[in-house]
Amino acid sequence: MSAVTPVLDTLDTEINASVERLFALLRIPSISTDPAYNAECRRAAEWLVADLKSIGFDASVRDTPGHPMVVAHHEGPAGAPHVLFYGHYDVQPVDPLELWEDDPFDPALKEREGVKVITGRGSSDDKGQLMTFVEACRAWKAVHGSLPCRITILFEGEEESGSPSLKPFIEANADELKADFALVCDTGMWDAETPAISVGLRGLVGEEITVKAANRDLHSGHFGGAAANPIRILAKVLADIHDETGRITIPGFYDGVDETPTQILESWKGLGQTAEKFLGPIGLSEPSGETGRSLLELVWARPTAEFNGINGGYTGKGFKTVIAAEASAKVSFRLVHSQDPARIRAAFRDFVRARIPADCSVEFHEHGGSPAIQLSYDSPFLTTAQGALTDEWNKPAVMIAMGGSIPIVGDFKSMLGMESLLVGYALEDDRIHSPNEKYNLASFHKGQRSWARILDALANAGAR
Amino acid sequence: MSAVTPVLDTLDTEINASVERLFALLRIPSISTDPAYNAECRRAAEWLVADLKSIGFDASVRDTPGHPMVVAHHEGPAGAPHVLFYGHYDVQPVDPLELWEDDPFDPALKEREGVKVITGRGSSDDKGQLMTFVEACRAWKAVHGSLPCRITILFEGEEESGSPSLKPFIEANADELKADFALVCDTGMWDAETPAISVGLRGLVGEEITVKAANRDLHSGHFGGAAANPIRILAKVLADIHDETGRITIPGFYDGVDETPTQILESWKGLGQTAEKFLGPIGLSEPSGETGRSLLELVWARPTAEFNGINGGYTGKGFKTVIAAEASAKVSFRLVHSQDPARIRAAFRDFVRARIPADCSVEFHEHGGSPAIQLSYDSPFLTTAQGALTDEWNKPAVMIAMGGSIPIVGDFKSMLGMESLLVGYALEDDRIHSPNEKYNLASFHKGQRSWARILDALANAGAR
Repeated sequence: MSAVTPVLDTLDTEINASVERLFALLRIPSISTDPAYNAECRRAAEWLVADLKSIGFDASVRDTPGHPMVVAHHEGPAGAPHVLFYGHYDVQPVDPLELWEDDPFDPALKEREGVKVITGRGSSDDKGQLMTFVEACRAWKAVHGSLPCRITILFEGEEESGSPSLKPFIEANADELKADFALVCDTGMWDAETPAISVGLRGLVGEEITVKAANRDLHSGHFGGAAANPIRILAKVLADIHDETGRITIPGFYDGVDETPTQILESWKGLGQTAEKFLGPIGLSEPSGETGRSLLELVWARPTAEFNGINGGYTGKGFKTVIAAEASAKVSFRLVHSQDPARIRAAFRDFVRARIPADCSVEFHEHGGSPAIQLSYDSPFLTTAQGALTDEWNKPAVMIAMGGSIPIVGDFKSMLGMESLLVGYALEDDRIHSPNEKYNLASFHKGQRSWARILDALANAGAR
Repeated sequence: MSAVTPVLDTLDTEINASVERLFALLRIPSISTDPAYNAECRRAAEWLVADLKSIGFDASVRDTPGHPMVVAHHEGPAGAPHVLFYGHYDVQPVDPLELWEDDPFDPALKEREGVKVITGRGSSDDKGQLMTFVEACRAWKAVHGSLPCRITILFEGEEESGSPSLKPFIEANADELKADFALVCDTGMWDAETPAISVGLRGLVGEEITVKAANRDLHSGHFGGAAANPIRILAKVLADIHDETGRITIPGFYDGVDETPTQILESWKGLGQTAEKFLGPIGLSEPSGETGRSLLELVWARPTAEFNGINGGYTGKGFKTVIAAEASAKVSFRLVHSQDPARIRAAFRDFVRARIPADCSVEFHEHGGSPAIQLSYDSPFLTTAQGALTDEWNKPAVMIAMGGSIPIVGDFKSMLGMESLLVGYALEDDRIHSPNEKYNLASFHKGQRSWARILDALANAGAR
């Protein structure tokens, strides 16, 4: 009997208990971007440390200038690989709260459209995902009294707020964190039946701009037609960023963007994705990006400029005939291939400044930046993991790209010389970052089983 | 001795008591646009009724579907004119509250830059202004036991929220409200020493548009490049409204806009207004409207499109990589001459709809509309009032236009066949609609004296 078989059995019999543990973590509103939840972030970190200690990890809460890290270590057999598992315990804000069917921090097991799901903020992104790995370790330890690989765990608490403390922490603790490679669980399946390994990830540049005009709010009757309106200036800046074909007009923006090789585009075509399938569930039908590109190319291999928030003037009920003193927008760029975040940020700022009237001003606030990641298709641990996933799901695991950004993958590569294996069980309809986030019970359960199989396969392949 | 002399003396000796009465009214937060303050609006109306009754007016609170009206009547001598005085007791919202030096609803008499001012929301717009007239009536009644003209008073409670109940109320009470002409006190002086009568007023069309894209908020990594972003669509709509010369591009927008006669432009030139003087105090220097027009022409005789508020996506602290489901803007147009509010609104909506992608939608919400007003320069009561103002201020009262909108002037004309005399004592630096609104004590005091003189002059001229 393979070492993994009784572990899988244990994961099956313990599924209810593992859901209860996840609920306990989900009940902690660890919203990292809002300082009001600082204590909750720490509470989530402490919960994880206690849980990891109960499995036998040498775990601790590690302070940073921001939210703390969780670091944990467990020895493995001689000759087995040393893996660093990464996840994040912080979650997105929950507004607009009124759109949630249930309290986002009172998780529950529900049936939605015939599927059993775990509801709540963070159920998918990323508490549910990281707990798949923790549960796999727990079951393995319970069955065998040991773990098949040497494992270091790093849980971050700032992933949803630009990871300001991450690089300094990795740098200061490089020796402790360095492993043979990293396992990162913050990505998704291709669909509910098809496991996936992500080999491409878009980078991210986040910027907040505030256009300032008059030194106070003005009456639009008295001053309208004479005084600069910062919302008008901001709207023009944002409108200028895309041309009629959806292409981004910031000079130099496409430096470092490669055309995707034809054979890759062909393989993506084989996945059968369509605008109807991808956009239909969210109520849309027309791809909004550059014309003449396939949908998967747009989200996996093309850079974007998105406006994530805009605010200015009177936004309450009714009407106020005001010309605001300032208006602001949160803008993000998704990067691909070798686009340079610093150059993109500088080019964007130049682009904005050139559009601000002489008597107005603009302020910029940086919200994180990370280059895109392109992993190699042929690394041996990737092939090993692919086999383990295929065993669990009875379907070949596909190699895909992801539209989102996971900055740590680039940091692991550049700072620790470590490749990452990106495996996750999230689904497109998990509503991450949105009201009514959920994680399929099947994702949670088979995700645990998948990690057990991957650890087993890595241990066997790694007996070098 | 003229009848007005002892009245002026009484206004001088009673100034402190009159300030206390204004304070009592200012303490009532009658914000009409926010339903949370409905009861406060009624309380302000009730306060005014009680005060007018104490002077001897037959005054009452009159219900409407919105905030109530105050209507009051007082007889005058046979042969004297019958005037309808209009003001509004509602005030603008006070956000951003943190920019106020003092509680906006705890008025005080302060010295700012060497000038005695009454602070608080509504001190200038319009509670302070309307009380100048009430105090003039009170003093006249105290001295003479009567009033020099027959006076009807109409105080509205929805001026800052589009006056939805006004037209139906005037229509239903036309016989009661009809007078020889109206006195409207919601305008300003030319400067702190120079009284003014406003003969031109811009109209207003208020619109709120909401662009809707996906059926929920989306993760900008997963969906960016494929899913429509309503902020991007909205920014493009708004940016398209002005061309490079500041001209509004909505088809038909300039229908009904006349070129201002050269002699009027010349007379405005004589007022010595400059961009530096007008924009300097608010921290700006460059007129933002149509190029090639003088500053006074821009604010008095040219239409505008202003964006009064914009909101979409994540606007809290930090960053959220979201593509919002919707984004909205409050847009207003200032109209001049014979621009038709209904046609402007329809043209704007067509303009917006033409810019919404096929799989997105837009909703419109109407926020009031009124045509511009152009009064005749040569009416006899205007000349009479001009003389009275000149007596009080020892400087010729100038005839100006105003950038703001006072819809009731158009309603009085169209529904009651009644011309209006627009006299007020507000100053450009009163910060109406902004934090730290104030009304100069001199405006309040000499405003009272001005009304006493105007009533006296009208009574004498009106002994037909």
